[in-house]
Amino acid sequence: MQMEQLGKIAREAGILLAATDTKTRNAGLLAIAKALEENTYAIVAANLADMKRSQEEKLGAPLLKRLTFDADKINDVIEGIHSLIELTDPLGATKLSTQLDEGLDLYKVTCPIGVIGVIFESRPDAFVQISTLCLKSGNAVLLKGGREALETNRILAKIIHEATASVGLPTNWIQNLETREDVTAMLALDQYIDLIIPRGSNHFVQYIMNNSNIPVMGHADGICHVYAHEDANLAQAVAIIVDSKTQYVAACNTLETLLVNEKIAAALLPTLKTALEAKGVHIKGDPATQAIIPVEAATEVDWKTEYLDYILSIKIVPDLAAAINHINTYGSGHTDVILTTTEATAQTFMTLVDSAGVFWNCSTRFSDGFRFGFGAEVGISTGKLHARGPVGLDGLLSYKFKLLGHGQCVADYASGKSHFTHVAQKTDCPI
Amino acid sequence: MQMEQLGKIAREAGILLAATDTKTRNAGLLAIAKALEENTYAIVAANLADMKRSQEEKLGAPLLKRLTFDADKINDVIEGIHSLIELTDPLGATKLSTQLDEGLDLYKVTCPIGVIGVIFESRPDAFVQISTLCLKSGNAVLLKGGREALETNRILAKIIHEATASVGLPTNWIQNLETREDVTAMLALDQYIDLIIPRGSNHFVQYIMNNSNIPVMGHADGICHVYAHEDANLAQAVAIIVDSKTQYVAACNTLETLLVNEKIAAALLPTLKTALEAKGVHIKGDPATQAIIPVEAATEVDWKTEYLDYILSIKIVPDLAAAINHINTYGSGHTDVILTTTEATAQTFMTLVDSAGVFWNCSTRFSDGFRFGFGAEVGISTGKLHARGPVGLDGLLSYKFKLLGHGQCVADYASGKSHFTHVAQKTDCPI
Repeated sequence: MQMEQLGKIAREAGILLAATDTKTRNAGLLAIAKALEENTYAIVAANLADMKRSQEEKLGAPLLKRLTFDADKINDVIEGIHSLIELTDPLGATKLSTQLDEGLDLYKVTCPIGVIGVIFESRPDAFVQISTLCLKSGNAVLLKGGREALETNRILAKIIHEATASVGLPTNWIQNLETREDVTAMLALDQYIDLIIPRGSNHFVQYIMNNSNIPVMGHADGICHVYAHEDANLAQAVAIIVDSKTQYVAACNTLETLLVNEKIAAALLPTLKTALEAKGVHIKGDPATQAIIPVEAATEVDWKTEYLDYILSIKIVPDLAAAINHINTYGSGHTDVILTTTEATAQTFMTLVDSAGVFWNCSTRFSDGFRFGFGAEVGISTGKLHARGPVGLDGLLSYKFKLLGHGQCVADYASGKSHFTHVAQKTDCPI
Repeated sequence: MQMEQLGKIAREAGILLAATDTKTRNAGLLAIAKALEENTYAIVAANLADMKRSQEEKLGAPLLKRLTFDADKINDVIEGIHSLIELTDPLGATKLSTQLDEGLDLYKVTCPIGVIGVIFESRPDAFVQISTLCLKSGNAVLLKGGREALETNRILAKIIHEATASVGLPTNWIQNLETREDVTAMLALDQYIDLIIPRGSNHFVQYIMNNSNIPVMGHADGICHVYAHEDANLAQAVAIIVDSKTQYVAACNTLETLLVNEKIAAALLPTLKTALEAKGVHIKGDPATQAIIPVEAATEVDWKTEYLDYILSIKIVPDLAAAINHINTYGSGHTDVILTTTEATAQTFMTLVDSAGVFWNCSTRFSDGFRFGFGAEVGISTGKLHARGPVGLDGLLSYKFKLLGHGQCVADYASGKSHFTHVAQKTDCPI
C-alpha cells in the first residue's frame, strides 16, 4: 500500500480508537499479552532468524544483545502490559471546568494526539512497549524499527494487529513500516500524522527535525553535569559521580562533565581519581584540575562533547554562579545534579539551571521513565514544549474544549444583554 | 544591537526572570499599569503620529480602527493588567509528586518556557497584553508588532522596560523589534528562542513554520462548521447559525460551512435563508440545498475555503456520520458545533470530531480566550501538541523534574540492593 494511503487509514482508525472506552482498550492490551505468551516460540524463531542474519552481517556484540528477544524478554514485556492495564485511563479526564454563564459550561478534556510515527532502534521490546503505550492512550501508530529486527517486528505487528482486532478495536490503528523509503514518505504526511518520535543518535534526530513539517519530540544531546559544591559530603560525592559516569556509559543520562567548587577540589579530586580509574574512566581536566591531579588537558571542545564512553571532563569553578553559567552555556538541558548539604544552595541551582531534570544529591542516571515510575517511556525530550524529560503516557495526550450550551449566542454578550460568570467548577464533563 | 546578541541577553534575562517570585512579578505588572496611566497622553500622541502616517499611506478603515490606541483602549489594557495580577502564580506549581524510594522524592514543577518570540498584527493593545502575559508567566519576550504601530509600540516598550526595571526585575526581559530583517534573523536563533508565536494570516503563519527550526504555536486556518441534526431546535438553530456566521465575519472562529441533516433541511433552510440574507450573507449550496432554496452552487473548493466574509456554504448530509466525516475531511480542527436535542448524539459528535473546540448548542464564536475566562489569550492553536485551542497563561509554561535525594545511586537499584517504591504523594515541592 502507498504510504499516503497508510497515513489516511491510520488517521481514520485513530479517530475511531479515540472514541473507544477503557474496557475495550484494556481488553485489547490483555489480548496482546495472551497472544505474545501463546506465540512465544514463533516470536523466538523469528528473532533467531534476525540474529542469524545479523551475525552473518557481523553486527557488533552490543547491538546483537539489544536485538535478542528471548522468552525472558518476552515475559518482561508481557509483565509491562499487565502494569499498563492497571493504570487509570488517561483519556476523557476533565482538566478544567468553567461555568461561562448559566447553562453554558466549558470543559477541557484529555484526548489522544491522533497518529504518531515512531522510528526506533533495533530492540524488539520497544515495538511492543511503544505500540501498547499508544493503544492505552488511544493513538494510532506507525512504527519503523531497526532493519536488523525485521522478522521479529513483522510477527509482533501481526500478533498485535490480530489480537486487537479480535476484541473489536479498529483495525489499522497499528502499521509496521519496513523500509527507509517508507520513513521518508511518512515525514511528508503532515496532513495525517500529528507527531514523530525519533529514537536514536543525535544526528538522526536532527535529520528528522530538518526533514519534516510534522512536530518532532526527541532529544538532541545528553550533556549532563554534576556540580560538587564546597559543602558537599565527600564520600557521597565520590559514589554519586562514579555511578553517574559508569553505571551505563552509553546512555543519554550519563555524566559527561564534572564541575567542582575550588574550595573542595583538593579534598575531592585525588580520591575521586582513584575511584574513577578503578572503573576504567579516562579523566580530562582544565588547568586548575591538572594542578591537583595528573590528567590530560580538557579544552573547550570537551565541554560540548557527549562522550557516551568511559571519559569524564572536569572543570574547577569559583562558585555556584559559575557552575550554573557553565551548565546553561554548554549543557543540553537534559539532567544536571548539585551535590550540597545546604537546601538554599540546592534551590538556587534547581531554579536557575534550565534543564528538564535538576537533581539534588543523587545520580544523573535516575533520569528515566521507568525509574520515575511512569511505567514505560516513549523517549526523553530535551525540548520545552508539550513534554519535557522522560515521556510516559501523559506525553501522548492532547485535549479538546467541550462547550455545552442551550442556544447561547455571542451577540447577546457583546450587547450586554447577557454576562459571563466565569465560575470555576469541580465537575467532570458529563458527556 | 545584533539580533544574535539580543537573543542571548533575552535568554540570560529569561533565566533570571524564571527565578523571581510572584510578588516581584506582580509588582512589575502594577508598575506597568501605573506607568501606562501616567503616560496616557504621550502614548496617545505617539499613536496619533502612527494614525496620521497610516492615513497618508491610505491604510484601510478596519486596519486604522485596529491601530487606534486611545484613552479608552489604554484603560482597557490597564484593567486587563489588574486582572492578571489577581491570577494565581502559574510558576512553581507541583503537578506530580512521587516518592521513588525513602528519601528520594520526585516533583514535576511548572516553570516558564524561556524566551518567546511573538510576531503580531497592528493592534497596540496586543503589545501590552502579550508582554504582560509573558511577565506573569516568567518568560522573556521578543515582540515584533505591525509596522503601522511603530511609534506606539516604541513608547510602550520603553514604558514597560522602565517600569519593570524600577521594581528590580531583570532588564532585557522584553525586546521590541522594529524591522522585517530582525524577524528573519530571529527565526534562526533556535539556540536562544524556545517558541515563536506568529499571529496573522494563514499564509504568514505557514511562512514562519517553513522558515524556522524553532517550534511554532499558531493556527493555520479556521474552517469552522455547524451541523444541524434532525432533532435540532429550529428557532435556536437559526439564531446560532446567524450568530456564528455574522457576529464578526473576519474572525477565525466564524462559521464557514453549514451541514444540515436531510430530515430537517426543508424545515430549516427557507427561514434560515431569510435570516441570513437580512444580515447580508451570500449563500452557496450543494445540489440538495439548491433543490430547497434558490442559491448559487457550492463546489468542492467551497468546503476547503475560509471566507472570512459574508459568505456561507451549505451542504445537506444524510446522517451524523456523514457530518463528522465531512468535518474531519475538510475542517481545520478549530471549532465545530452540533445542534441537537439528544445528549448521546452530541456525545458521539464531540468524541469523533477531531477539533480543538467541539460545541453543543451554542455559537462557534465562543471559541476565544477571553470568553473562555482565560483572562487574555496569546493566540489560538490548531496544533494538537503543547497547547490546543485558545491559549492563555497555561500555554506559556513548561515544567522541570526536581529530584531530591540523599546520596542514592542507580547501581544499588540495578543490583537489587535497593528497591523503588513509586508511591504517589500529594506534597508540594519543598524547594
